[in-house]
Amino acid sequence: MTQRYQIWVAYDGSAFAGWQVQPEKRTVQGELERAIRKLTGETVKLHGSGRTDQGVHARGQSAHFDLSRDWGLINLRRGINTYLPPDIRVLNAQQQTPHFHARRSAVSKEYRYFIWNAENLPPDLRHARAHIRRPLNVDAMRKACEALIGRHDFAAFTANPNRFVESTVRHVMALQVRKSGPEIVIIAKSDGFLYKMVRSLVGFLIRVGEGDLAPEEAGAILKSGLRTAVVPTAPPQGLFLWKVNYGRGATYVRNQH
Amino acid sequence: MTQRYQIWVAYDGSAFAGWQVQPEKRTVQGELERAIRKLTGETVKLHGSGRTDQGVHARGQSAHFDLSRDWGLINLRRGINTYLPPDIRVLNAQQQTPHFHARRSAVSKEYRYFIWNAENLPPDLRHARAHIRRPLNVDAMRKACEALIGRHDFAAFTANPNRFVESTVRHVMALQVRKSGPEIVIIAKSDGFLYKMVRSLVGFLIRVGEGDLAPEEAGAILKSGLRTAVVPTAPPQGLFLWKVNYGRGATYVRNQH
Repeated sequence: MTQRYQIWVAYDGSAFAGWQVQPEKRTVQGELERAIRKLTGETVKLHGSGRTDQGVHARGQSAHFDLSRDWGLINLRRGINTYLPPDIRVLNAQQQTPHFHARRSAVSKEYRYFIWNAENLPPDLRHARAHIRRPLNVDAMRKACEALIGRHDFAAFTANPNRFVESTVRHVMALQVRKSGPEIVIIAKSDGFLYKMVRSLVGFLIRVGEGDLAPEEAGAILKSGLRTAVVPTAPPQGLFLWKVNYGRGATYVRNQH
Repeated sequence: MTQRYQIWVAYDGSAFAGWQVQPEKRTVQGELERAIRKLTGETVKLHGSGRTDQGVHARGQSAHFDLSRDWGLINLRRGINTYLPPDIRVLNAQQQTPHFHARRSAVSKEYRYFIWNAENLPPDLRHARAHIRRPLNVDAMRKACEALIGRHDFAAFTANPNRFVESTVRHVMALQVRKSGPEIVIIAKSDGFLYKMVRSLVGFLIRVGEGDLAPEEAGAILKSGLRTAVVPTAPPQGLFLWKVNYGRGATYVRNQH
């Protein structure tokens, strides 16, 4: 009898061509499917909660797949990790009902974007931070966030609005800017993100922080519904898929990293 | 006329065979000397504040060298960076008197050791954290630190006491353990560190944190003066040379990272 499994996955996106399987490319999904096949002997199709782009990292990606026999969850997690390269780790594995779907059952997602705001970027952080030399005005960035929180049409903040979805309306539940020394973290939580939406929001917020745009322009850009060069796409290496939240019925269990 | 320059350097130690020049090996000193030669046309001998081992990182290493002509400091910093690989950055350059010596003028150094104390290590941190799965008792580790702070003979906490020095007495001004979620940081400040001394202190503190050794054993181990298997050497990738402090007369100027 078929059993559905959910796994929580973390990865260093630096050396991957993103999540999704592509011919001749090294992808996170591809490496995971290969490791599951080597462990179980079964060829599975892995369904992620969503794609991440080339260079984007994850601390709490979620995915599901089906196996034809029961596995002990610790053996399953450790076994898959044995066959994975060191830049991907399965954090946890759990059984799910056949109704669970890693993407469709998700009720919200949280991304975190890390900026290093100083003259020099320490080399040990170069694959995990966006480096912005000009001092950012965090108060202005926070003010701009206020207009973006809530239910809006985010067509102006996606790289290609018609690519994957019918509606570009999304509910942004949280958009926060935290600062600690040279490090600035932007936390974004939504019921769903459009293609390159987090990096577009961050690109806009950086321009506000640099003083190129006023915080008040957020509302007008949203209303325009048009993606223009005013909103740049922030670089991928600062972005982490932090966690995926599931509602009641789909248990949320995640290891402390 | 010869001019002495001091540079502040950060590096990701993952892909280096340590600081010191060795034949046929990729070293931080070697890459810096090569970049300075390419920029200035002069073959310099670079004097670091001390060596770091293979896999150890730096956020604030200091070094000096002499050039036969005057350079603008910003041009010197940027010019060297142009010829450096991305895993080394010169943070700052300044002029010094001929009496300044990066090692001999230093009055103290600070190292930071980063531990990830959880079942799983996020892959993006795998080159910059020691991964300890067993939950560490931070209170016990702090208690053990108390006996180690001060002026002591640290022969029991160096890998090879007779290798580089005549005396194994050092003054440890600070040894702190900070915890924030799964991350534990050990901060060590001393007027000088023996060979592998920080990693030996950390190795001991981890065993205390794991409950294998009592905090009170620190005193007896110090007094024994003998390095035994009781004190392991913690792995290199958690260790960062954080900063080098100079007294009056040798200006301390360092960029915010």
